[in-house]
Amino acid sequence: MIAEAAFAELVRLLPPGRLLNDLADRDAYSFDASFGDYLPEAVAQPTDKEQIAAIVQWANRHLVPLYPRGAATSLSGGPLPVQGGVVIDMSAYPKRLAIDAENMLATVSPSVITAEVHRAAEAAGLFYPPDPSSSAVSTIGGNLLENSSGPKGLKYGTTKEYVIGLELVTPTGAIVRTGGRTVKNVTGYDLTRLIVGSEGTLGIVTEAIVRLIPKPKASGTLLATFPRFADSGVALTRVLAAGILPAAMEVMDEFCIRAVEKYEPSGLPTDVEAILIIEIDGHPAAIEEEIALCRELCLANGAASVRVAADSSEQADIWRARKLVSPAIARLGSAKISEDATVPRSQIPAMMQRLKEIREKYRLNLVVFGHAGDGNLHPNILADKRDKDEMKRAEAAVADIFAAAVALGGTLSGEHGIGLMKAPFMEMELGPEGLALMKAIKTAWDPNGIMNPGKIFPAPGMTKAVLTYDGQG
Amino acid sequence: MIAEAAFAELVRLLPPGRLLNDLADRDAYSFDASFGDYLPEAVAQPTDKEQIAAIVQWANRHLVPLYPRGAATSLSGGPLPVQGGVVIDMSAYPKRLAIDAENMLATVSPSVITAEVHRAAEAAGLFYPPDPSSSAVSTIGGNLLENSSGPKGLKYGTTKEYVIGLELVTPTGAIVRTGGRTVKNVTGYDLTRLIVGSEGTLGIVTEAIVRLIPKPKASGTLLATFPRFADSGVALTRVLAAGILPAAMEVMDEFCIRAVEKYEPSGLPTDVEAILIIEIDGHPAAIEEEIALCRELCLANGAASVRVAADSSEQADIWRARKLVSPAIARLGSAKISEDATVPRSQIPAMMQRLKEIREKYRLNLVVFGHAGDGNLHPNILADKRDKDEMKRAEAAVADIFAAAVALGGTLSGEHGIGLMKAPFMEMELGPEGLALMKAIKTAWDPNGIMNPGKIFPAPGMTKAVLTYDGQG
Repeated sequence: MIAEAAFAELVRLLPPGRLLNDLADRDAYSFDASFGDYLPEAVAQPTDKEQIAAIVQWANRHLVPLYPRGAATSLSGGPLPVQGGVVIDMSAYPKRLAIDAENMLATVSPSVITAEVHRAAEAAGLFYPPDPSSSAVSTIGGNLLENSSGPKGLKYGTTKEYVIGLELVTPTGAIVRTGGRTVKNVTGYDLTRLIVGSEGTLGIVTEAIVRLIPKPKASGTLLATFPRFADSGVALTRVLAAGILPAAMEVMDEFCIRAVEKYEPSGLPTDVEAILIIEIDGHPAAIEEEIALCRELCLANGAASVRVAADSSEQADIWRARKLVSPAIARLGSAKISEDATVPRSQIPAMMQRLKEIREKYRLNLVVFGHAGDGNLHPNILADKRDKDEMKRAEAAVADIFAAAVALGGTLSGEHGIGLMKAPFMEMELGPEGLALMKAIKTAWDPNGIMNPGKIFPAPGMTKAVLTYDGQG
Repeated sequence: MIAEAAFAELVRLLPPGRLLNDLADRDAYSFDASFGDYLPEAVAQPTDKEQIAAIVQWANRHLVPLYPRGAATSLSGGPLPVQGGVVIDMSAYPKRLAIDAENMLATVSPSVITAEVHRAAEAAGLFYPPDPSSSAVSTIGGNLLENSSGPKGLKYGTTKEYVIGLELVTPTGAIVRTGGRTVKNVTGYDLTRLIVGSEGTLGIVTEAIVRLIPKPKASGTLLATFPRFADSGVALTRVLAAGILPAAMEVMDEFCIRAVEKYEPSGLPTDVEAILIIEIDGHPAAIEEEIALCRELCLANGAASVRVAADSSEQADIWRARKLVSPAIARLGSAKISEDATVPRSQIPAMMQRLKEIREKYRLNLVVFGHAGDGNLHPNILADKRDKDEMKRAEAAVADIFAAAVALGGTLSGEHGIGLMKAPFMEMELGPEGLALMKAIKTAWDPNGIMNPGKIFPAPGMTKAVLTYDGQG
């Protein structure tokens, strides 16, 4: 509980009306796109970095937890105020976005919607490749703190590969800059990349410098259907072995295909085990040749059909099938548990086999789609929130998914972050020493444990996924 | 001084003959490719990671500094044993290199020469882009601890962008793994990228997993000469603005050109201020068109001549001019102070102007070449080691170079690392808080200050470049 005097002090650190305190307001900040329901004690809406620094200093004096929050599209509980305290809502923060075309950089404040970065870059003939599926609503600040990246990781790398400088309010309330405006920078430790993906536990980002690249001149897209899922993996490997590096290689399993076709019929075949979407970008001459070769390789490796988009409208049609997956499968259950366990690409068939076993073992609605090119699958479990037995089975299935990913040489999370849900599994992947190295950084930077406590690091005694948490820990 | 009993203990941790102790051997480990001459107390040549872990534990018990060392091509004093203690020479470490073509990865031990990684990747139709000019002799372990990257940073990113997993002996002697075999991984903090570029101060790398990409199908190269240096910068910007992302854009100033032409006459014009070499790689059809456009853009922006390589032998001829720069300028003085201050690309003309002023102010032989595409210039000062006044002027000039880079929004080091030489300037770029954040990590991981002490972090009272250190600090 924040003492009354401390609260009065906090009010004075913010512009009028920027500290929300009544229950209705606080309630609106008690959830995100994941699970759980945690009521904050207050919500601060800072409008400049000095206010943030002052709030962090205040929090250290009064030992009050802080939780930075962007658009709250987190699928891992990133912004949830799990230990009480104050949510730092960045929505009132000035939305600055400057493109430096000559240096191919953008300087952006954390509150800017990621799609705005895409639009501004493209208007300057440039390109910002990271594109999480939430990019039309999520903020760049949230994207970079979770390192959420989307379909283009294989060719273009993740968000981390684009962030070269940050301005940060540290966990003790200092304002610092890391990195800068150059792609090459080895002046001391790479704090920029340490902070990207730190899920708000190492400070609050107040500005980012991201690098841009020339916009690819053209792109081509094809959709291939595979009666056998394993063949889609072989085709994908053959494409890469032919020296082609697609901008995206997306896969949907049979359950996704059926859900999409049921949600909005568009002629997808419901009798195949996999759809593979391949997008190539680059020089027009190269694309034509490479798309033709991709088509051949799919057909030679078990594809039943291959549709090559003739123009941008047909490209959009193909992508529409992929983009309908999330809304379509959301219909299948009131609880949608969206995972992002990632494996080395060659292990995708083995992972699919494990997921099939998990589906059967726990009798769950488990569908799989994702970024096949970088091994980043999205197994989604659709369950009924009110069915306690089913939710328990889902909890157990999630634990098995993580174990399978790690056993196959993969990782708990490719892009959603650890947050609350995966914290209990950290040691399984990292071992006690690996986790201790991370914890040592956290403790050194945030001795009072102010910044986003309860995330990433497992609380003592946490042993399983926390899907059924419901309120106040 | 290592006590006799401690020394006897150390001997038992290594295979017979793998602890070097006599003066001649130790002397061979007292220098690197930078400045200074520091005699180690002993040299250990471990042959497995368990030996390294045992040595690190021993060093913590006896408070003996350790200095990991690859091929000692460091230009910033990285492996120098500046506070006595033991050099960990990785040259006896097993040289393992496994290409996983299906996942486009290489698993490599730190003692492998970087050029071997290039060769093995290419034999599998793949490509490892980082290519520091020392790659024929330097080790991958050294490259990644310094994040040294070479000419391809603009298109392909730096070494850091390719290292996705590490095995590390920590500063307290635990063996841990960071990252893994997937490009996407947000399971906790990114320790992999924290360690890459940490100059051996955060542990000893015993294995790295690097990602590879499909080998570009073809490449094209041109050499343009510019009577006015500034025009080369304009041409380069126009090329990027045309949506072309060259694999390399290398620049040489008039002093370099004359040195190369004198060293090995090959018909370079000695009356121009700049040579710009542009290399494009990718699909053959795209290359032909893009090289032609680069040629036009150079000629339209002040180039006196443009030579396009007709085949791979002419490409090699063009690169030969660039590769002769180092040996050619080494003839100009017994001391070659090679810097790597990096600025945003648009600031290259301003930086060249500052370098001209510095050359004149200190009456020094200062030549400039480098990776213009990513703003990573290599100003080199050639001086006479025995001329104390000239060396003092060089020291002052180096300080001015750093100040100019930082004033222009750049950084002290693009790829050589901070080491000894630049440590006094860290606070100028990072401020006291930024430096304190780095130091907090170092202290948390290495409480006894065992791992490569005296590097990156300025010692109290250090205020200037340390070119004239000569022995034992």
